[in-house]
Amino acid sequence: MTDISMIHAAAERLAGHVRRTPLLSSPFLDEIAGRRVLIKPECLQHTGSFKFRGGWAALSALDPVARARGVIAFSSGNHAQGVAYAAKLHGVPSTIIMPADAPALKIANTRALGADVVLYDRAGGEDRNEIGDRLAAERGLTLIKPYDEPQVIAGQGTCGLEIAEQAAELGITDADVLVCCGGGGLTSGIALALEHHAPAMTVRPVEPEGFDDVARSLVAGAIQTNNGPQVGLCDAIITPAPGNITFPIMHRLCGPALVVSDDETRASMRHAFTRLKLVAEPGGAVALAAALFHADQIKTNTVIVTISGGNVDPSLFAQILTEAD
Amino acid sequence: MTDISMIHAAAERLAGHVRRTPLLSSPFLDEIAGRRVLIKPECLQHTGSFKFRGGWAALSALDPVARARGVIAFSSGNHAQGVAYAAKLHGVPSTIIMPADAPALKIANTRALGADVVLYDRAGGEDRNEIGDRLAAERGLTLIKPYDEPQVIAGQGTCGLEIAEQAAELGITDADVLVCCGGGGLTSGIALALEHHAPAMTVRPVEPEGFDDVARSLVAGAIQTNNGPQVGLCDAIITPAPGNITFPIMHRLCGPALVVSDDETRASMRHAFTRLKLVAEPGGAVALAAALFHADQIKTNTVIVTISGGNVDPSLFAQILTEAD
Repeated sequence: MTDISMIHAAAERLAGHVRRTPLLSSPFLDEIAGRRVLIKPECLQHTGSFKFRGGWAALSALDPVARARGVIAFSSGNHAQGVAYAAKLHGVPSTIIMPADAPALKIANTRALGADVVLYDRAGGEDRNEIGDRLAAERGLTLIKPYDEPQVIAGQGTCGLEIAEQAAELGITDADVLVCCGGGGLTSGIALALEHHAPAMTVRPVEPEGFDDVARSLVAGAIQTNNGPQVGLCDAIITPAPGNITFPIMHRLCGPALVVSDDETRASMRHAFTRLKLVAEPGGAVALAAALFHADQIKTNTVIVTISGGNVDPSLFAQILTEAD
Repeated sequence: MTDISMIHAAAERLAGHVRRTPLLSSPFLDEIAGRRVLIKPECLQHTGSFKFRGGWAALSALDPVARARGVIAFSSGNHAQGVAYAAKLHGVPSTIIMPADAPALKIANTRALGADVVLYDRAGGEDRNEIGDRLAAERGLTLIKPYDEPQVIAGQGTCGLEIAEQAAELGITDADVLVCCGGGGLTSGIALALEHHAPAMTVRPVEPEGFDDVARSLVAGAIQTNNGPQVGLCDAIITPAPGNITFPIMHRLCGPALVVSDDETRASMRHAFTRLKLVAEPGGAVALAAALFHADQIKTNTVIVTISGGNVDPSLFAQILTEAD
């Protein structure tokens, strides 16, 4: 199980490879939020999301013989690119199972990052797990899960180490830390890091309306699922349920989750554009939306906000930019 | 006149106030450019451009009595915001003379950053210098020029100190450094910093077609002017001529300038969006355009590229995003 020593070890393996993203701010965002807002822009991480941290951490923790045979992952999005690029930099093969109807650009990017992309027909009922199991067996590949995997959580936790250090440099030890939350890998990793390095901070998961499985699970004290549609604006953080490994960590360490509307998320993407000069994808902007539009649910003088990714289609981004607030 | 000791002194005054922008990269940009591309994203600087460096350096160098009376600047753009915010953080008044037909958002932003914005009617023939002289005399204000001012050049030079340090951390000492160039404040400041801290690097100014006064001046060995229109896509870096202080520095230290088309600049803004998750304004994207589309004019294995600002209107950005490459 992931603990602080695993996060420290992951940080050592990531040193010189991961990008230490800065901590940004804007007086305009402070004014809207009614408090100091510090932004941790993981959209600036390699491959445009925090997923490179977990991908590298998992790859670098493998036994060298297993690693040389290669890795496999299921993903149509950020985890695919994070694992593919980490594998490429390690000089080992990666196989990524993607739905054939994934955006052509994401398929092309994942291939360009060195992966062997295997497409499956999700409409036609092909079972990606069956394909994955077969390929893993044939090729001797190691599966890297997107969040319910201790080394992946440890890798995402390195983002929390940086938050603790960078906030301390500003003299800040007490803050709510809002984390864009899908399966809970980033959220639980940051929570573990802050438990040890910034114990007065509280991690608050943030989810989109209609996909608030973590919020409901934290209230219920047990894993709850999303039973509605599995697609939405915030695709990067839509998951059926929190993980079996991530949920107990979040339950032990996190404060109440926050839930934001798609309109608030879109407005936050515009604010990130105007005030921070950052490209945030919808799923990466929900934490900023919570800071700006749910200030009444936050009590600390400073709020720290992750922007977890920036892999958004240009046409969608252009459309959102031209909407009125 | 600005020298390396003035830049070091500016860096000391800026410490803890300026943002140390990271050095970014993307394997996709490397592939297009045919070499390693390192990006210095000053769009992530306070107020969305490098101008905050010069504004702070000039404010903080003033005699405290003079500073307390306040400062004045002429600008419709990035210099206005940089000076206004630096003055606000110093707790002193700023007066910014802006054309009445400047974009409403820029006027509103400059006011929100604490400035007393004085509008003049440029179509009606009001003389902004006359207005400025009168206000400066009445209020005892100190004028902060946008580039032809030694302390402003020293402030911009701190960007060069960071480039030298960050490149050295990557083991890089030899590179062309492409700088988006208007009046030459950033270009000459970086050139002075690198002369002392990375002498194997060569600064190359980059300009838009039709506004290549620095390119022509460097060839001629004497200041040449732009005699055509004074408006264009790359508004932030359109100036009538290099400065009397900046030009001799550029002439002594810079390699040949590069000139890019507006179409190349627009394509570079799309690449910054897709590959770096950064919002670059047109004038801030010309150096990236040179790296990507004029690779034949660069000889070094590594090229370092400034993205000097990100203050672009959302509707223009949306339009550029949806254009085909």
